Amino acid sequence: MPETLYEKLMKLFLNRGFFFPSCEIYSDAPAGFWEYGKLGVLLRNRFIEAWRRELVRRDEMIEIDGSQIMAKQVFMASGHLESFADPVSICQKCGALHRIDRLIEEKTNIRVPERMNDKEIEAMLKRYNVKCPSCNGELGPVGRFNMMFQVRVGGTGEEAYLRPETCQSIFVDFHRIYMTMGLKLPFAICQFGKSFRNEISPRQSLMRLREFYQAEIEVFFNPKKANMYEKVKTTADYKLRLLPKDGKLIEITCRDAVENGIISNYLSAYYLALIQQFYEKVGLDKSRLRLRQLSDDEKAFYAIEAWDVEAETSIGWIELVACNYRGDYDLSGHMRTSGKDLTVLDDGEKIIPHVFELSMGVDRSLYTIIEHNYHETQNRRVLKLPYFLAPIQVAVFPLVSKDGLPDKALKIYEMLKLDFDVVFDDKGDIGRRYRRMDEVGTPVCITIDYQTMNDDTVTIRDRDTMAQRRIHVSELKDAISKILHIDNLHG
Amino acid sequence: MPETLYEKLMKLFLNRGFFFPSCEIYSDAPAGFWEYGKLGVLLRNRFIEAWRRELVRRDEMIEIDGSQIMAKQVFMASGHLESFADPVSICQKCGALHRIDRLIEEKTNIRVPERMNDKEIEAMLKRYNVKCPSCNGELGPVGRFNMMFQVRVGGTGEEAYLRPETCQSIFVDFHRIYMTMGLKLPFAICQFGKSFRNEISPRQSLMRLREFYQAEIEVFFNPKKANMYEKVKTTADYKLRLLPKDGKLIEITCRDAVENGIISNYLSAYYLALIQQFYEKVGLDKSRLRLRQLSDDEKAFYAIEAWDVEAETSIGWIELVACNYRGDYDLSGHMRTSGKDLTVLDDGEKIIPHVFELSMGVDRSLYTIIEHNYHETQNRRVLKLPYFLAPIQVAVFPLVSKDGLPDKALKIYEMLKLDFDVVFDDKGDIGRRYRRMDEVGTPVCITIDYQTMNDDTVTIRDRDTMAQRRIHVSELKDAISKILHIDNLHG
Repeated sequence: MPETLYEKLMKLFLNRGFFFPSCEIYSDAPAGFWEYGKLGVLLRNRFIEAWRRELVRRDEMIEIDGSQIMAKQVFMASGHLESFADPVSICQKCGALHRIDRLIEEKTNIRVPERMNDKEIEAMLKRYNVKCPSCNGELGPVGRFNMMFQVRVGGTGEEAYLRPETCQSIFVDFHRIYMTMGLKLPFAICQFGKSFRNEISPRQSLMRLREFYQAEIEVFFNPKKANMYEKVKTTADYKLRLLPKDGKLIEITCRDAVENGIISNYLSAYYLALIQQFYEKVGLDKSRLRLRQLSDDEKAFYAIEAWDVEAETSIGWIELVACNYRGDYDLSGHMRTSGKDLTVLDDGEKIIPHVFELSMGVDRSLYTIIEHNYHETQNRRVLKLPYFLAPIQVAVFPLVSKDGLPDKALKIYEMLKLDFDVVFDDKGDIGRRYRRMDEVGTPVCITIDYQTMNDDTVTIRDRDTMAQRRIHVSELKDAISKILHIDNLHG
Repeated sequence: MPETLYEKLMKLFLNRGFFFPSCEIYSDAPAGFWEYGKLGVLLRNRFIEAWRRELVRRDEMIEIDGSQIMAKQVFMASGHLESFADPVSICQKCGALHRIDRLIEEKTNIRVPERMNDKEIEAMLKRYNVKCPSCNGELGPVGRFNMMFQVRVGGTGEEAYLRPETCQSIFVDFHRIYMTMGLKLPFAICQFGKSFRNEISPRQSLMRLREFYQAEIEVFFNPKKANMYEKVKTTADYKLRLLPKDGKLIEITCRDAVENGIISNYLSAYYLALIQQFYEKVGLDKSRLRLRQLSDDEKAFYAIEAWDVEAETSIGWIELVACNYRGDYDLSGHMRTSGKDLTVLDDGEKIIPHVFELSMGVDRSLYTIIEHNYHETQNRRVLKLPYFLAPIQVAVFPLVSKDGLPDKALKIYEMLKLDFDVVFDDKGDIGRRYRRMDEVGTPVCITIDYQTMNDDTVTIRDRDTMAQRRIHVSELKDAISKILHIDNLHG
């Protein structure tokens, strides 16, 4: 059987140090945990830098970084203690615990709605005669398995939880941030960090992890003014790629989407535009990108309206960002549970702000960016990442390993290595060295040849065109900076 | 009682959004968890950028980012399951759990050695008649409280732990990294990320957290060659500020420290030099910085030789980095427990590499940098951070709120805001606006005045000298980039 694209990329990840399983020297270590290797860390850092520039700074958001272990009270207020649970069933014969909605879906191809209760699921189980996939035994009654990891804190063993979404820090910190930062609605608070979900069956490497990176944005606004904010005009003519819940894919401007009642308000449309623009900028193939509206069955328990940014990949459509209109669900809940007044004054009106959220899965976004930019021909494999995202930015090669070329190359490498992520390679023939760099998306390869020894010029080779040009060593830093700038369009 | 410096800084942190307690709207939330606000995130990011430039890139380290939840086997191998435990005692009257070595130390001023066993501690307890600090009750037998947070993973509830130090990811990933990255001893693998310790009594805000940031570097080398590596020569003449275990503070070159037997080898001395240089660069006051050698009583259970980078602050000497010579303790342990061959070939010799570690506490480093750079005079409070570390880099002010100046200022703000961290402020008198920026260390304040409307020049004010100069708007970006460059020395 020929290797699938997914399998090819997995090999690339493992062999070149992008990503690999956690604790892999222990064969019985739990699944669903992955590490970022050197290239993964660099790619992730640049992706987050782009997120900071194109979303956080552009929209003047407040970025915070909260604790991952949070008090039990937080999750009483948020509803996670009660509702963040998967339906499960234990096999009466072999004792294995199964995520029961998935089993039903796999057997019947019928979607089990998010909000179906245990009795209804049990009825489906019987109707379709679903058995234990391991031993074919009878499945027991349907119960719930809470997906949060519990920890016990301090000498008294106080109950606390690893947050299942980064946004809870934002809601809990909202009051202090609002009081001290001189903010006026609408404003956004955002966070990049780890979240944790005790998945019963983690799968597909970076796609469903138990510990994963989110970059979440929570926009606070006055719902009465959702169509009136000045900035929403800036994206009114921008075309969204929408898949409404009862329709087909359409390309439609923010204005038309709101005026035709497809999106509920201009503020939501504005942020949907921002996130679609962001994914275009970081190199996703626009023709395989869509904003899909979730049906009432699929929506999370706190969502009034929900759109998923999805991308098509070789393993199907992947959810990259959940965009949820959460109403005042979160602030009201924390206000009730904490007894703290979380209202704000908006032009004299005392309100609990509403929330529109952009909840991005970072790990799977990185996977998708790599897949959409991976190109293979008979001669070479090239990762055509936008240049500004490339993990290794520059490679320095002496053409041959003699006549002083390696020393000269090392000097140039040393000159560049603090300002850029550079590698030096003097092993094997030059073609093979280029190919190793193409495979991981390195945009600039510098070669030191005999002419360099005479006139201090080097060749720089462009990854995508493979064109080479000569440039004086003294101009290298500026030239590379220009090539790597986020607004340098190419490819 | 006058406010202490520590109290002043706490106020600054809370009021300006550097750092604040986690879940603070819930008054009964567990202690020892803090959030980074906007300014804290920015400062932390720039600190880590400097760490990446001055240590990771300079020394050509491999940076990874591993899972925080790790398999139980990892901590069987590392010794943490058995040895990473504090001595505790439960009050027989009120039931409170106490960290018993601390109680003894507070009462007697006698240090309880790290390696003292439970029986010996119990004897001290009796000898000095230590009672429960809450109710004065009798204290029960001495036991151990493991400081790792346990979690249960998946349907079967497999035991796993939040890592108590980031370096365990490095040891567990060592084999794959070595096999795939084409490395040759000596090389370093490093990581910035969260670690978790279930402290019985967390204290002093950022100083002893239960969830905290580390930036750890593990250097792998052949112990027989520790004096022979080429790069150790580059720091041979650099002067370290050493406090040897049986001596006084001395300033001594790396060479002399090794030749006189104060530091065991040149490789260790080289990395101690790198870390001291780093702290000088990020703005610590060198005269309040030292490398203190730990006595045998104080060393961690895995350390052969140990030096702490310490800084003097208003709340005493703070440990910023633990520099441990760990020998082959870690790789041998994981090799034994996993059955995986973790040896490497070093010029034909099969060895288990030795490890020298630089384990940095990031949160407390940030606290110390702020404290060492905080200046107060009658007229103003200035955070004289190195310019490249400043959270807010640029402030843009219209001199007055009329005659088109705010619009002009907004245009300049918009021009800069994607490339730098910029704030716009048009409220209150200009002197007050400068002072708000001084307090958080903003190096560049740009003022738009009436002359700007005629000739497109603005004033830029230097934080430290308060000198103003006029500059054309078209030159702003370049001027700011120069001011913020890490190698721009000043102040």
